[in-house]
Amino acid sequence: MLFIPTYSDIEKAHDIIKKYAHCTPVFTSSAIDTIVGGRLFFKCENFQKVGAFKFRGAINAIFSLSETEAKKGVATHSSGNHAAAVALAAKLRGIPAHIVMPDNSPEIKKRAVAGYNASITFCAPTLQARETTLAKVVERTGANEVHPYNNFYVIAGQGTAAKEMIEEKKDFDSIITPVGGGGLLSGTAISTKTLLPNCKIIAAEPAGADDAFRSFHSKKFIASKNPKTIADGLLTSLGERNFKIILSSVDNIVTVSEENIVAAMRLVWERMKIIIEPSSAVPLAAILEKKIDVRNKRVGIILTGGNIDLERLPF
Amino acid sequence: MLFIPTYSDIEKAHDIIKKYAHCTPVFTSSAIDTIVGGRLFFKCENFQKVGAFKFRGAINAIFSLSETEAKKGVATHSSGNHAAAVALAAKLRGIPAHIVMPDNSPEIKKRAVAGYNASITFCAPTLQARETTLAKVVERTGANEVHPYNNFYVIAGQGTAAKEMIEEKKDFDSIITPVGGGGLLSGTAISTKTLLPNCKIIAAEPAGADDAFRSFHSKKFIASKNPKTIADGLLTSLGERNFKIILSSVDNIVTVSEENIVAAMRLVWERMKIIIEPSSAVPLAAILEKKIDVRNKRVGIILTGGNIDLERLPF
Repeated sequence: MLFIPTYSDIEKAHDIIKKYAHCTPVFTSSAIDTIVGGRLFFKCENFQKVGAFKFRGAINAIFSLSETEAKKGVATHSSGNHAAAVALAAKLRGIPAHIVMPDNSPEIKKRAVAGYNASITFCAPTLQARETTLAKVVERTGANEVHPYNNFYVIAGQGTAAKEMIEEKKDFDSIITPVGGGGLLSGTAISTKTLLPNCKIIAAEPAGADDAFRSFHSKKFIASKNPKTIADGLLTSLGERNFKIILSSVDNIVTVSEENIVAAMRLVWERMKIIIEPSSAVPLAAILEKKIDVRNKRVGIILTGGNIDLERLPF
Repeated sequence: MLFIPTYSDIEKAHDIIKKYAHCTPVFTSSAIDTIVGGRLFFKCENFQKVGAFKFRGAINAIFSLSETEAKKGVATHSSGNHAAAVALAAKLRGIPAHIVMPDNSPEIKKRAVAGYNASITFCAPTLQARETTLAKVVERTGANEVHPYNNFYVIAGQGTAAKEMIEEKKDFDSIITPVGGGGLLSGTAISTKTLLPNCKIIAAEPAGADDAFRSFHSKKFIASKNPKTIADGLLTSLGERNFKIILSSVDNIVTVSEENIVAAMRLVWERMKIIIEPSSAVPLAAILEKKIDVRNKRVGIILTGGNIDLERLPF
C-alpha cells in the first residue's frame, strides 16, 4: 500500500513550513510575455533557503518526526540541493544529519552541507555505492532516511510552493514544473487539482533524461538509463509514489532540447535579472520550443532553484 | 544660479514615475548579514525597467516637458543605461529620441536602444566627439537634451528610489549608493535628509575613478582623468548640480578596490541569486573592505542596475 498525501496533508505541511521557509515572491516579465504571447508567473524558489524548493520537503519531513524518532537524526544521499536542504532542516530542529555524498560532488556543494554542520560520508559516484553507503550509515546510527522525492512528507512539502502561488495569484490556465524524481510535480498536482480543478498540470523534462515522459505516455514505469543533461537536478528516475500521483493527476509531460534549456536560462538571466539553475529553465524551454501552448493564457511556472557554479556557465 | 530640487520636487517626480516604473522590491540576505554583522536592505533597481534606476530620472525629465517642448523630442549621449532609459521613456511619451552612442558600444546596448525605436547617431568613443555630435543633433532637430545626471528633473527622479525604500522599511542608520556622475547620490541625499534627518548618507566609488572622493574631501571640483574600473556605470565625472548637493548633504565618500567590487558582486550573485552589474556592487565592496562600519546597524543600499554581458563575466 502506497500512502499518498491529500490536500489536507499539504495544508498541514504548510503550517510547519511557513515557520522556517520563505514565502518566495512571484515574478513576471513583460519582455518574456511579449516573446511567448502569454502571461507567465514565475514562483521564485531560487530565492528559497538553500537556494531551492527542496527545503520545503526537507523541513516537513524532519519536523514531522516524533521526538523519539528525531533524536536519532536523519540521513540521505544526495550530491545536490536535497543534501543542503536536509542538513539545514536538521540543524534547525537541532538533530544530527548524516549525508552520503559522491566524492566527485562539486566543492561548493560539499562546503554548503558542511557549513550546516552535517556529518558527510563520501562514497563512489554510483547509485549503488550511494545506496549501500547510506544503508550502512542508517544501520550504524539508527537515523531516519529522508528520501529526496519518494517520501510522503517530502511530496506534501513540495506541494506548498504551488499552493502559495495559487493563493497569491488566484487563477491559472496551467501550471508547469520540471520533472526529475517527481516530488515537486506530484505535490504540485495535488495542490492544484484541489485549488483549481480546471487548471492543466504539465511537466517538462530534458530529452536526455526522459524517463518520466516515457513512463507517463506508456503508463508503465520505465527507469532512467544513462541520463545526460545540463539540468543536473533532473537526472534521477521517478519515484513509485510520485509516478502513481502523476498518472492520475498530470495532464501532459513534454521534453525539451539541451539547447533550449540554455536559451531559456539565458533569457531569464538577461530579462529578469535573476539567477536560476538549468533545471529551473526547463518549463520555459518547453514554451520556447512550442511544446506547450501559452498564447493568451495565464501560466504558473515554478523556478526550482538557483544553485549553479559561476565558473562553469554554459554561455 | 543652479536650481536644485527640494523634497517636494521628488514628491512630484514620484507621482509621475509611479505610473511608468516598477516600485522595485527591497531584498535582504541573512547569509550576507552574518558575514558583515549588520542588517542590509537592498533596493533592487536591477529589476527596474531597462534594468537600471536610470529609468526614473529619464521618465521624470521627459514627462516634465511641456507639450510644445516634447514635440521636438529628446536627445542625449550615452553608451549605457541612460541611453536605454531615455529611449524607452520617449517611446512611452510618443516622442522621438535621438541617442548619440560611441561606435564601440556593446552590441547588446545598441540593440536595446534600437529596440525602443530611438534614432541612433554613432560617433568616435571620446567625450569630445560625443558632445560635438550631440550638439549637431540638437541643432538639427531642436530636441531637448536630457543630461544623464546634471539635470534638475533627473536628480529629482533618482531621489524616488530612496524615498520608496524608506517608505517601505522606515528606519535606517545609513544609506549607501555608488557615485559616478552623482545623479543618484544627490537625489538620494535630498530624499533621505528630509525623511530621516539622522540617517548618514555615504557614497562608495571605485578607487580607479575617484573624482567624487577627491572632490568631496578637498571641497573643490576635480574632474575625472583617465578613469579605469570594471564598474562601467561610474566612469563619468561629477555634475555641477550634483556636486553642490553632495557637498551640503553627503556624510562621507569612500573608495574601493576592483578586487572587492568583483568579490561583492559575486557574493550577491551567489547568495541572493540576483544579477547585478559591477557598479551595483560598489557599496557592498566598501562594507567588505571595512571602509564603512555597518555592525549592528540598519543599512539601505541601492543596487543600481543589472545590465551585464554574460559572455564577459569577471569570474
